[in-house]
Amino acid sequence: MKTIGLLHPGEMGGAVGAAARAGGARVLWTSDARSAATRERAGAAGLEDAGPLAALVRASEVILSVCPPHAAADVARAVAALRFAGTYVDANAVAPATAREVGGIVEKAGARFVDGGIIGPPPAAPGTTRLYLSGAGAGAVAALFAAGPLEAVVVPGGPGAASAVKMAYGGWNKGSAALLLAACALAAAEGVGDALAAEWARSQPGLAARAEAAARSNARKAWRFVGEMEETAAACAAAGLPAGFHEAAAEIYRRLERYKDAPTPPLDEVLRALVPPRPGA
Amino acid sequence: MKTIGLLHPGEMGGAVGAAARAGGARVLWTSDARSAATRERAGAAGLEDAGPLAALVRASEVILSVCPPHAAADVARAVAALRFAGTYVDANAVAPATAREVGGIVEKAGARFVDGGIIGPPPAAPGTTRLYLSGAGAGAVAALFAAGPLEAVVVPGGPGAASAVKMAYGGWNKGSAALLLAACALAAAEGVGDALAAEWARSQPGLAARAEAAARSNARKAWRFVGEMEETAAACAAAGLPAGFHEAAAEIYRRLERYKDAPTPPLDEVLRALVPPRPGA
Repeated sequence: MKTIGLLHPGEMGGAVGAAARAGGARVLWTSDARSAATRERAGAAGLEDAGPLAALVRASEVILSVCPPHAAADVARAVAALRFAGTYVDANAVAPATAREVGGIVEKAGARFVDGGIIGPPPAAPGTTRLYLSGAGAGAVAALFAAGPLEAVVVPGGPGAASAVKMAYGGWNKGSAALLLAACALAAAEGVGDALAAEWARSQPGLAARAEAAARSNARKAWRFVGEMEETAAACAAAGLPAGFHEAAAEIYRRLERYKDAPTPPLDEVLRALVPPRPGA
Repeated sequence: MKTIGLLHPGEMGGAVGAAARAGGARVLWTSDARSAATRERAGAAGLEDAGPLAALVRASEVILSVCPPHAAADVARAVAALRFAGTYVDANAVAPATAREVGGIVEKAGARFVDGGIIGPPPAAPGTTRLYLSGAGAGAVAALFAAGPLEAVVVPGGPGAASAVKMAYGGWNKGSAALLLAACALAAAEGVGDALAAEWARSQPGLAARAEAAARSNARKAWRFVGEMEETAAACAAAGLPAGFHEAAAEIYRRLERYKDAPTPPLDEVLRALVPPRPGA
């Protein structure tokens, strides 16, 4: 039985940990400086509290990092400082260059690095969610999930490739949702929201409903999309593509950060949050 | 019978002129410094060559400007310089502020200004295309099209409102097509195009076909989307929204300008055009 250390059991991390347990592994987490909500999720997922991070690092053959994009390098540094020499998987929504930077940090400490990227909701049932993996140890990590609800897919191309799949996929999904909200906000700010809705009803059926859905499902999660969009902008720039789509998407989601832990807002409230009041208006 | 001056009979302008003729108007154009292709289109649309611009301005009660966005103000200046005192309709894909600037130019010369924006393909049959109109004379201009295939829709809100409808509509359509091509180009540049296509086939069916269509239908028209995307970026900035989506879209279309008058390229060629070769690669 393999022992996996999971950093950290957020909504996605908890489900990934449970999927690894379903695959036959023992899964540890560290309660060091984590919230009561995290403790609850870890318990519900059947993860074992290893105590301090050093104990988790000592006991784990594989460490899985599932955290907000901006924290990916810090988590790697903390693990590297404890001389982790097993397999380190960064499964976060980061640019290929960030993934390779994380790889450099843990490899210097003696670990083997596997790049990862998760596409889909927190996996509960099979078929909804993929863990893309790339790098020399990707196959061995994929095997850990063979029996669980999270499907592991090995991508050729070495470290960075799995992250690139995630960036391109999320770059469209979250980028287009932000663009759609921006188009609605432009029409609303110019006082032509009804005319746009009437035109869409004729020539783009379904688009108004899609905008409603984008507001409904993204407003409360916007706070954690900001970092991912910034990583995607960096990924585009590094590939020689314009960074503006995702810089703008990051700004749209930044303006919606206030809806974290708030009731789901209706579209018209979201549009008002996106367009700051004009001076004198 | 009203006399309308049409500047200029491009693909869209020719069809708009034909629609005005179907509505019962006499439609003039000026052959001054126009190409043989324009002459052919004007003839096919049944437009009368007024000769020089001054003759068109003298004879027209209404002037309709249908031209690339970057030329909108210049066309207005040329007409204003000839002291046109009828109704001037700017039907171009420009920001509300640009539309109001055009309005200021022609009003100073004594004309009445009506803002316009066209949504849909060049109108041949009824039901495909709308001419949005706003401003005090919008109703009278709409009446000119009552009997033709181009449906005129009056939007409340004064000059700028019709342009705002066009900006928001095109901002999503052309902006999202550019974003989709950028997502594909990112995956291709990182060598994970196949993995992205496989993931899309599972969780976003139809998206790969949409990317193919975006390449097929936009590459040859990209040269004229650049200016529209720049106007949309300006419209977003003026409304307090991020300009980056459409600045990036303008850059995407700029990289495809080479396909003007070229055979329609396949998606993989478009993606190579979008990502400049890396040094040493």
